[in-house]
Amino acid sequence: MLFHDRPVLPNGFRCASRNCGLKPQARDLALFVSDVDAAAAALFTRNHFPGAPIVLGRETIRAGRLRAIVANSKCSNVATGAAGVENAGRMAAAAAAEIGTTADRVLVSSTGVIGVQLPIELIERGLRGMSGDLQADPLVGAEGIMTTDTYAKALSANVGSATVTWVAKGSGMIAPNMATMLAYIFTDAALEAPALDGMLRRVAHETFNMLSVDSDTSTSDTCALLANGLAGSVDAVAFERVLLAGCLRMTEMLARDGEGAEHLIRVSVRGAASELEARRIARSVVDSPLVKTMVHGADPNVGRLLMAIGKCVDCTVRPDATDAWINGQQVVTRGQRVDFDEASVRRTLAADTVDLEIALGVGTAAATAYGCDLSRGYIDENAAYYSS
Amino acid sequence: MLFHDRPVLPNGFRCASRNCGLKPQARDLALFVSDVDAAAAALFTRNHFPGAPIVLGRETIRAGRLRAIVANSKCSNVATGAAGVENAGRMAAAAAAEIGTTADRVLVSSTGVIGVQLPIELIERGLRGMSGDLQADPLVGAEGIMTTDTYAKALSANVGSATVTWVAKGSGMIAPNMATMLAYIFTDAALEAPALDGMLRRVAHETFNMLSVDSDTSTSDTCALLANGLAGSVDAVAFERVLLAGCLRMTEMLARDGEGAEHLIRVSVRGAASELEARRIARSVVDSPLVKTMVHGADPNVGRLLMAIGKCVDCTVRPDATDAWINGQQVVTRGQRVDFDEASVRRTLAADTVDLEIALGVGTAAATAYGCDLSRGYIDENAAYYSS
Repeated sequence: MLFHDRPVLPNGFRCASRNCGLKPQARDLALFVSDVDAAAAALFTRNHFPGAPIVLGRETIRAGRLRAIVANSKCSNVATGAAGVENAGRMAAAAAAEIGTTADRVLVSSTGVIGVQLPIELIERGLRGMSGDLQADPLVGAEGIMTTDTYAKALSANVGSATVTWVAKGSGMIAPNMATMLAYIFTDAALEAPALDGMLRRVAHETFNMLSVDSDTSTSDTCALLANGLAGSVDAVAFERVLLAGCLRMTEMLARDGEGAEHLIRVSVRGAASELEARRIARSVVDSPLVKTMVHGADPNVGRLLMAIGKCVDCTVRPDATDAWINGQQVVTRGQRVDFDEASVRRTLAADTVDLEIALGVGTAAATAYGCDLSRGYIDENAAYYSS
Repeated sequence: MLFHDRPVLPNGFRCASRNCGLKPQARDLALFVSDVDAAAAALFTRNHFPGAPIVLGRETIRAGRLRAIVANSKCSNVATGAAGVENAGRMAAAAAAEIGTTADRVLVSSTGVIGVQLPIELIERGLRGMSGDLQADPLVGAEGIMTTDTYAKALSANVGSATVTWVAKGSGMIAPNMATMLAYIFTDAALEAPALDGMLRRVAHETFNMLSVDSDTSTSDTCALLANGLAGSVDAVAFERVLLAGCLRMTEMLARDGEGAEHLIRVSVRGAASELEARRIARSVVDSPLVKTMVHGADPNVGRLLMAIGKCVDCTVRPDATDAWINGQQVVTRGQRVDFDEASVRRTLAADTVDLEIALGVGTAAATAYGCDLSRGYIDENAAYYSS
């Protein structure tokens, strides 16, 4: 088993969370701290309306060094102008003062409602004394960043003598109740910032960037990787392999916990003309409302699979070369529906994980996308949510 | 009032519909006939898995002449290989024999389940004697092509001494229960096929091609325009203006009748860098599940609007130049939320039609997209649908 039964933070990392008054009772403020400066890399949302913490974070990460991450929920500090950026700076400064560093070593994340100014005094007051609560259990920090997640998400694993720990929240690239994706990865391995940056980009490309609950890209998505070096050097190839495995597992956990979701859907495309086309077709299938409701209804309606592939009009698709499988059972051969055992396929669609495989037969590129089914629960959570 | 209170078919056009046994009781076969050959143009789905009727129709329309359209529901004749194309040809031949023309003058449409061979004998038997039922009421034909539509859709209007009549069905570019969009337009104006083709392409670009209920593009979409010339020549500019108005109205009717929909959503984008970008951003907003559920929940959550604009990462968007309105009330100015009257905006969101306007402030291009809200009804219809 690659992952620990019970996740722990690597040496020199600790975290805390508490309620600072943004929410009535639930924890709404989280702090992750390294005892020493850590080499760091981060990726942020590409949305044109990034939150103030993203604007600040892009500057902060340039130095490639972080001591802490501070995150609040309930208010995303997005579309808040210059006052918003100032508040994000105050949040970094308050966290820095609490743990004895400078504001430029603190990464800030905020999620929640857009277009409302951050109640910064509540956050500053909440941070006071929080260093006394710091502990090694990553689930404590994970709980502090939860919004519509149904459980706190953390994983840890070893690479040589080092530990890698993932803490994440949110239901994907989506912004359900503004439940932006945040993913923080901590390690005590000694790795330089440029190496971390390259690894994080390559791994996110295969994992978090192929995750979609509802195709809506948040304004606050943040993925950060911190390496404090306390465990010494590790084999970089082995590290990246474990990094990929953990990000993949976390991607599946986030997709499976998508709002209203009852199934994880994995769409694997192979035989595509290019990697870009493989990714586009995999995403088209995983995002198709008719495929998502097909899985939700446990209905092996293979026409919907073909439709979702075929609507990628700018990709190379040859109907007479296209094969497809649902949970390992072939349902399409050369663009035509196979006379498969419907009852059997319907039974497998009731499983927690549904694998849709597509072989395009026009090239050698492949990609996998991760998503979930679409249920009444999604409608209920998002139509019932009021912005104020 | 441009449109007639009660729609009629133009001179020389008649239609009929009946049950031929594909469905238990409802009408599942429709026939539209011109007394004389009509000049014709048609547009078809761009999906890579077009139905057999599309494969045949692309050949048929090359001659620019049609006498009839024959359409069935319940089985789409998609992903059915060479046997499917043969069956589509038999369907055209049977309709041609019934009305006394040749198969190459008959356009065929089929909608319904994908991957099942057409029960062609039922259709051939059903067509026998159908010419005796032909009449001038377009709603009779409209009823014969309905699937998940909640009512039969037809419109008619005058251009000079000529009449134009629209008959359509389906809930957009979506394939809910495979409820493909079919739109047939008939006129007794005298216009040549190349002119009809140009007009139809220009008008569809602004109307049907900007319609999206759920972003899923059907494998059977067909839009055809027939002009039998019995009313003589008309002013082409006036004709195209009426054609646009009717297609726009029909687009709104189809969006409003999207599966589970309770609202028509119109998203108008102006001030874009290019028409392509205006169209992409308008579609991004109208397709966003979080915007759709926002309208469904009557919640003026303007952050979701900004998110859906901002996720068009390849378009030119300047947050500090972006303004937005909900039903005429400004909610965003220069990328920031306006302190608007929430109760008032919430009340307007309960209206049948919801207008979302976006001014990007980066150019002069504009576009409007048409869609609907996302409700439990959509989930129920599509998760409960079985392919067999």
